[in-house]
Amino acid sequence: MKTECPARIARLQEKLQQNNLDGALFIYPIDIYYFCATRQNSTLWVPAQGEPLLLVRKSYVRAEQEACCSAIRPFPRSAEFAQLLDGQRKIGMTFDVMPVQQYNYYSKLLPGRDFVDISAINRDLRAVKSAWELERMRHAGVQLCRVYATVADFLQPGMREVDLAAEFEARLRKAGGEGYIRMRAFNQELFHGVAVSGPSGSSHGFFDGPVIGQGMSAAAPHGASRAVIEKNQPILLDYVGVFDGYCIDMTRMFVCGELDEKLQNAFAVACQIQAAVAERLKPGAICSELFELAARLAEDAGLAEYFMGMPGENAKFVGHGVGLELDEMPVLAQGFNQPLVAGQAIAIEPKFVFPGLGSIGIENSFAVTEHGGEKLTPLPDDLIQIC
Amino acid sequence: MKTECPARIARLQEKLQQNNLDGALFIYPIDIYYFCATRQNSTLWVPAQGEPLLLVRKSYVRAEQEACCSAIRPFPRSAEFAQLLDGQRKIGMTFDVMPVQQYNYYSKLLPGRDFVDISAINRDLRAVKSAWELERMRHAGVQLCRVYATVADFLQPGMREVDLAAEFEARLRKAGGEGYIRMRAFNQELFHGVAVSGPSGSSHGFFDGPVIGQGMSAAAPHGASRAVIEKNQPILLDYVGVFDGYCIDMTRMFVCGELDEKLQNAFAVACQIQAAVAERLKPGAICSELFELAARLAEDAGLAEYFMGMPGENAKFVGHGVGLELDEMPVLAQGFNQPLVAGQAIAIEPKFVFPGLGSIGIENSFAVTEHGGEKLTPLPDDLIQIC
Repeated sequence: MKTECPARIARLQEKLQQNNLDGALFIYPIDIYYFCATRQNSTLWVPAQGEPLLLVRKSYVRAEQEACCSAIRPFPRSAEFAQLLDGQRKIGMTFDVMPVQQYNYYSKLLPGRDFVDISAINRDLRAVKSAWELERMRHAGVQLCRVYATVADFLQPGMREVDLAAEFEARLRKAGGEGYIRMRAFNQELFHGVAVSGPSGSSHGFFDGPVIGQGMSAAAPHGASRAVIEKNQPILLDYVGVFDGYCIDMTRMFVCGELDEKLQNAFAVACQIQAAVAERLKPGAICSELFELAARLAEDAGLAEYFMGMPGENAKFVGHGVGLELDEMPVLAQGFNQPLVAGQAIAIEPKFVFPGLGSIGIENSFAVTEHGGEKLTPLPDDLIQIC
Repeated sequence: MKTECPARIARLQEKLQQNNLDGALFIYPIDIYYFCATRQNSTLWVPAQGEPLLLVRKSYVRAEQEACCSAIRPFPRSAEFAQLLDGQRKIGMTFDVMPVQQYNYYSKLLPGRDFVDISAINRDLRAVKSAWELERMRHAGVQLCRVYATVADFLQPGMREVDLAAEFEARLRKAGGEGYIRMRAFNQELFHGVAVSGPSGSSHGFFDGPVIGQGMSAAAPHGASRAVIEKNQPILLDYVGVFDGYCIDMTRMFVCGELDEKLQNAFAVACQIQAAVAERLKPGAICSELFELAARLAEDAGLAEYFMGMPGENAKFVGHGVGLELDEMPVLAQGFNQPLVAGQAIAIEPKFVFPGLGSIGIENSFAVTEHGGEKLTPLPDDLIQIC
């Protein structure tokens, strides 16, 4: 981290200068973690030039132990805070995650300033992973794959989805999974992952992903439910492993018995789509074109209606960035016309949802490289038949 | 829920009228859930008089199944949205959780309006639980207690804190725990709960609670760590059970062997403080006075320095509201000078943190009643000795 953080700060400062900003003020924990290696309750000031300053509310002791930032101080009194930022007129903030109350608080502390939304700059910086970060993500991928490799030990017909989830989650925790999944998008939330079987795999829901699940209640309408897993049903496990803060995302399919031909065929199509997109995961490829390719392959297979969600509520993407948050940039989606950059990490997740039958598909996390996607989740994609 | 939601809406409308507001616009999922019984991705308009209107982004199908709200529509085009709120000038919003980007979006859709922060009104409404809600919370308490009652089956010296956490969490999930813990405060986050033993129970950290733990990394610096549980160490389990959306919060102490006298004494003091506060948990009691009482009892016992956190970073409360979020109103803390109201649900958690030794204390969730606190977590408070 000793070379990571200064390099990240330098990349940010370049952007601040290009946008004629005097500096950026971060208050969101994972943003601060990215630039300083601590998520203690703090405010981070990064001037367009010069040294960042970390002002810590709690815990100062721990922030001092963790932070890669030479200037660390307890959060000062209001007047002193205003003085520290004296002369800084144009200040960037991440409006995507900053509550209005916080914005009003800082507006009062720093009157007359011009606050500018740098959410897009911040997300773009994070989208491209360093060699060090990719190494963390490879490690995370291996840990998550090890847990997936044990599923045959405990999955059996007659257990409820939530029992399957509990067994998987316990193993993921023992493997070092941190559990808490950070999502940036407003209104989204996810607990650990999704374990669904049969009809509950074809549930409608708020989540901006293809497979949602019935969940435990209307308050938690996402993921595993109390439904009992039956023979010959598609069982989909879509879990996020979080290690050292980095999310890695993958999905595997299981069945106790046999899947019918329609579902087997859809699974084969999902794997073909994944392969087609993954081999094009090279710098310069256009995100929206990769989505269109995927959608076309689904259509050619006669499965357009079921692609990426319940018919009528289909998600309009086939892949999403992963990193410190589960929903990082870029997104392989309509309207995302920017080119891929080497070092981006993207989960590709072609899936089909058949009303009443359930969902089926595949997901792996990849790094964008000159040779196409490097798979960060090294486990065979095969549908796993149990008993 | 068919009578719950209209009653909640009526209480809100009374407040809106008192504050001369034309209505309130909610976009935060759990706020919408409270008033409409669905957390689908929606925007809720509650006029100061008349019927609320739920505008759903995703999933409309599911929102229709779940919502207790007679007027439900897909989220309309911008012009139509503006028309729906035509003539509404003074509009309440929850600024505590609304990102600036969302605020700017609605400001553009509804130009010339006066947006007013109703965060405090919203939190005050939620603080007082109905008989129906208390019944849900009693149920949640019983489920969580059942899991605590199994700890002796799997806790043993030599296991890591994270192994203990994994076993506990798996049982909590199988008991129906929804897992995802909602917290309202900015910068706070919690995965499931905290399992700590010995020295890692005395970690500094960002979390606004007494016991924080070392966690798995600087990115997840909270809760269980890889530390190995040893004999004669205080083992503290502080877990949140979430059932039907309602959080219930409790802590129990365990030891493999014997605790030294100093810790045993501190545990007895924590239980005395809990009893003193719980018996005063009646309508009219002043929150800050209950905190002062607790602090005085800690001081009388010569333990002021260790009360509610690491010395120097002590939390300044002894209890907090629980409900759909873990950090509801009221707080038994300095500066909270309002009186308790019957039906409020409060977790009382007197704890002591001894640097290098660990943490010890007790926690139960209570309802405020005329006869004092009604314990919602019906399990004996005893320190549990294993092997």
